[in-house]
Amino acid sequence: MQVKAYAAHQCGGPMKPHTIERRDIRDNDVEIEIMYSGICHSDLHQINDDWGGANYPLVPGHEIAGKVTKVGKNVTEFAVGDHAAVGCFVDSCLECDQCEGDHEQYCREEVVQTYSSKDPVGPEKYTSGGFSTHIVVREHFVLKVDKSLDLSKVPPMVCAGITTFSPLKEYNIGEGSRVGVIGIGGLGHMAVQLAAGLGAEVTAITRSNDKAEEIDELGAKHSLLSTDKKAMKEAAGSFDLIIDTVPVKHDLDPYISLLDVRGVICIVGQIGDSGNLNTGPLVFGERKITGSLVGGIKLTQEVIDFCRDKQIYPMCESINMENVNDALKRLEEGDVHYRFVIDMASMKDQAD
Amino acid sequence: MQVKAYAAHQCGGPMKPHTIERRDIRDNDVEIEIMYSGICHSDLHQINDDWGGANYPLVPGHEIAGKVTKVGKNVTEFAVGDHAAVGCFVDSCLECDQCEGDHEQYCREEVVQTYSSKDPVGPEKYTSGGFSTHIVVREHFVLKVDKSLDLSKVPPMVCAGITTFSPLKEYNIGEGSRVGVIGIGGLGHMAVQLAAGLGAEVTAITRSNDKAEEIDELGAKHSLLSTDKKAMKEAAGSFDLIIDTVPVKHDLDPYISLLDVRGVICIVGQIGDSGNLNTGPLVFGERKITGSLVGGIKLTQEVIDFCRDKQIYPMCESINMENVNDALKRLEEGDVHYRFVIDMASMKDQAD
Repeated sequence: MQVKAYAAHQCGGPMKPHTIERRDIRDNDVEIEIMYSGICHSDLHQINDDWGGANYPLVPGHEIAGKVTKVGKNVTEFAVGDHAAVGCFVDSCLECDQCEGDHEQYCREEVVQTYSSKDPVGPEKYTSGGFSTHIVVREHFVLKVDKSLDLSKVPPMVCAGITTFSPLKEYNIGEGSRVGVIGIGGLGHMAVQLAAGLGAEVTAITRSNDKAEEIDELGAKHSLLSTDKKAMKEAAGSFDLIIDTVPVKHDLDPYISLLDVRGVICIVGQIGDSGNLNTGPLVFGERKITGSLVGGIKLTQEVIDFCRDKQIYPMCESINMENVNDALKRLEEGDVHYRFVIDMASMKDQAD
Repeated sequence: MQVKAYAAHQCGGPMKPHTIERRDIRDNDVEIEIMYSGICHSDLHQINDDWGGANYPLVPGHEIAGKVTKVGKNVTEFAVGDHAAVGCFVDSCLECDQCEGDHEQYCREEVVQTYSSKDPVGPEKYTSGGFSTHIVVREHFVLKVDKSLDLSKVPPMVCAGITTFSPLKEYNIGEGSRVGVIGIGGLGHMAVQLAAGLGAEVTAITRSNDKAEEIDELGAKHSLLSTDKKAMKEAAGSFDLIIDTVPVKHDLDPYISLLDVRGVICIVGQIGDSGNLNTGPLVFGERKITGSLVGGIKLTQEVIDFCRDKQIYPMCESINMENVNDALKRLEEGDVHYRFVIDMASMKDQAD
């Protein structure tokens, strides 16, 4: 099946109309008409090949929500007309310890990313993501979306949502937990809501006060200005978990001091060199530095259902596909509030 | 009671004969005649005031083994003539969450270090350690030593032993666990034996091959040369836990790559800046960097009893007190195999 898409044809873009081939559904595949497609900060990195290995033409998008249009004969969990979502990966071995432990993202064989990943079964060499009208995905990797959920706001749940939900669950966050969230953006504004939804006392840790009112609405009990040395000192030792969503290089030491004994800072934003590390607070209190990469399919389903139960939604700015290059530019400048979601109906009129 | 001791009278030493006052036993105190006193690398740091806050004259020593000579009337667990040991701290509040959770070393009030710590109940302002003939310690902080244990080799168990046992227990090391130990010295040679004793497959990670035979005897199944880039690459992703005992600044990145998904590197040696940290392996696999500080009293008792059951002993070089300055110099140069223990009988003839 030929489907309309938007692709970066070379490193750095721009995004332009493109046509891709989707495979015919196999017995265990689900075909989805994509209705909404979120834009993640990592799409920018991939378009710019910041991490190496990007394949062009590159069709980004791993925050996908839509309607099931076809199912293979062995598919049991989905029917035509169901709402469904697809996140950051679309296949893995499902046999190794990681897959069996519901951590498909760390598959020992090779996880197939939703886009720009070598596609062992596709008609094209590399996978293509959600900036397209349809996608065909192996059933195991398709998420169920209850129809009570506003589908237009679902896409960020399967990336920003699961990415921040994963450490919250890993470290048993609940009533009485003290959670800090560094950076209130796409990931951070979900982290605050999810942690608060789990019953934690949440502090938003930011560089400026200009989001104070909104932080309040998201469910944070406190704000902490990381530039305020006195406040930072007073907050020393007061967190069980800090989720660090800052996507650029920054010094971790000031945040590690905020952790209580056995507290954990989990990096979900920046990948690469983070500067000097002082081991003192680690030794004197068994504090931990770790990171986390999205989450497995089971937990991704859990976060979607949790959002439904708690009526938690990402804050989204809807755009049309023809404005995607502007949106990417604004994203690069941090000018988004807090997640762009492309209304894929805007692609209907695109010329073939 | 006036007791003979050796003290650094000023920053940097040297150690010289000294006399200190020990308190009369209180109802819950145990008085111990010190028979063996280990020398820890941290004694060097304290003598040189590397970490600040050292108080002179400073009587080091927090690896203490001896014989009970008096007990207070409320003491229930010790009797005169029992063998006993004292480790890195001698008092804490015993009421906070950390103390109640058997982590007295992280007491919320203030843990009283065995030496150079403000002493709220002593006749002198600061506590004095094991480089002395007797010590008086609150019962809770005294460890039982079964008489089947060679007392002369017990001292390192309550510092080097518990320091490395603590992460092994925290991360549930046992049969099937893959443990790496960086640095084979005072701490490292205990870590290898304890991990092997728990059933783990142990790899000694060193900078040279010159200890290969001994590493074998300690129970390590493999050696890994950290300077061998090919071998390091081949060992990528193959450890559940790495205990890093290196006491000087070093880059952590090459070791983090050795961890499997969700693997942990635990720093028990170096305190301070450790250089640049790359967050990539943390994010792509939830790897963890942490540290650990000795261990609580309950676990310290457990490691002593574990050493008895498994017949695990530190390798000790016995010295007389008059040679302590030479020993400290050799320790600084890494020329010890692997722990100096002062035979305190050598202090008997010291002039008052």
